[in-house]
Amino acid sequence: MGNYRIILQYEGTKYQGWQRQDSTNNTIQGKLEALLTKMCGEPVEIQGSGRTDAGVHAYGQVANFHGNTEYSTEEIMEYMNRYLPEDIGVIQVEQVHERFHSRLNAKGKVYRYRVMTGNVPHIFDRKFVYEHPESLDVAAMKEAAALLIGTHDFKSFTSTKRGKKSTVRTIEAIEIVKNGDEICFTYKGDGFLYHMVRILTGTLIEVGEGKRSCTDITRILEAKEREEAGFLAPAKGLALMEVFY
Amino acid sequence: MGNYRIILQYEGTKYQGWQRQDSTNNTIQGKLEALLTKMCGEPVEIQGSGRTDAGVHAYGQVANFHGNTEYSTEEIMEYMNRYLPEDIGVIQVEQVHERFHSRLNAKGKVYRYRVMTGNVPHIFDRKFVYEHPESLDVAAMKEAAALLIGTHDFKSFTSTKRGKKSTVRTIEAIEIVKNGDEICFTYKGDGFLYHMVRILTGTLIEVGEGKRSCTDITRILEAKEREEAGFLAPAKGLALMEVFY
Repeated sequence: MGNYRIILQYEGTKYQGWQRQDSTNNTIQGKLEALLTKMCGEPVEIQGSGRTDAGVHAYGQVANFHGNTEYSTEEIMEYMNRYLPEDIGVIQVEQVHERFHSRLNAKGKVYRYRVMTGNVPHIFDRKFVYEHPESLDVAAMKEAAALLIGTHDFKSFTSTKRGKKSTVRTIEAIEIVKNGDEICFTYKGDGFLYHMVRILTGTLIEVGEGKRSCTDITRILEAKEREEAGFLAPAKGLALMEVFY
Repeated sequence: MGNYRIILQYEGTKYQGWQRQDSTNNTIQGKLEALLTKMCGEPVEIQGSGRTDAGVHAYGQVANFHGNTEYSTEEIMEYMNRYLPEDIGVIQVEQVHERFHSRLNAKGKVYRYRVMTGNVPHIFDRKFVYEHPESLDVAAMKEAAALLIGTHDFKSFTSTKRGKKSTVRTIEAIEIVKNGDEICFTYKGDGFLYHMVRILTGTLIEVGEGKRSCTDITRILEAKEREEAGFLAPAKGLALMEVFY
């Protein structure tokens, strides 16, 4: 019995997100578990570093599973890539310590959100960007983003209804880079709440549109009310880039 | 009545190529003509700089049409992008001299062919690259490519059966760049015959695999027989990048 850590990429477009559901087998976790169960000849569960929502992509999702197989790590990767759908790929397989847990051991994550401005269509990127024809004030968004850095209660920036779990998180960096028509938001932090990156981005976009000012940010954080923050930016612009351990 | 020059992008995956066919309306030209005919209220024909095969992509296809419309060029672009499928986009519309003809006036073209080597899947690029797991000898391919530069009879490098049209073309440059797992071939020339870029690439790949030597190239050119050249590289790796006038 080995504990295997895998690094995965997927295009989220067609899936109901990461998490296995009883009602559909159209989830990333579901597809992986069905395949690994077949490979090992007994039920296998796979644990992701975190869930990604329906339509969200991953360039570096990390997951682990305990399985009984005589395959080498190279053979596991080959087997998985042969049978997985073309929009899910395994880019690394390693055998790790029995106690490694991809979610509990995760120390931080990097997410990227891509926005395309301008009237010219971006057909090659259409599944990976949020198209926002009007231009955005990047300087104002950077100023607002700076107020989000650090350890805060991000309760206003999550869609989770009341719960007992802490909504305090630490954002280490938010980078906003404009390159031609594209504005790319990169978030690095110790962990992100449900919908948090998309609501942070929606709020920053409203600052970039001039609908909100920088000073709103502090008020939103203090309010601890979802209604105070900006809109939920569409899933397709978001990708999980990297998980740190 | 105006003559309009448009620059187009498309993902060729789902289409039967550029050229209108009677048997299917699933071509780029067919989609554009149906839309422009609706926009102008009378039959409109659109002329491309050249045909692209089924599955081939375009980042800078140029086409022109004569049409009667009261729309400005900005409005034409907006109208087209509103109604075109999501995998076809218009990135520029200009009114040009009545005698401008996108095919007859074209002075040169740039095509790009992308190959991915290695065992790691490239799910985000899967529709735009040819996956060739074994590595390729780039130095040998560059040496072979150098022998193709210049004005030659490329009869061996086209799938067109006998015809009276000249098969002499001039290749100005072939650039082969390796970037990680990706090998990118860029071809610049005054024009390319049917399947020419894909057969050139297939032949260079066979050199990169060590199945052919550089000296074969001269022999293939002299033979003027399709059978002497390499395999037809898959359409999905190819894209028309730019047309010069």
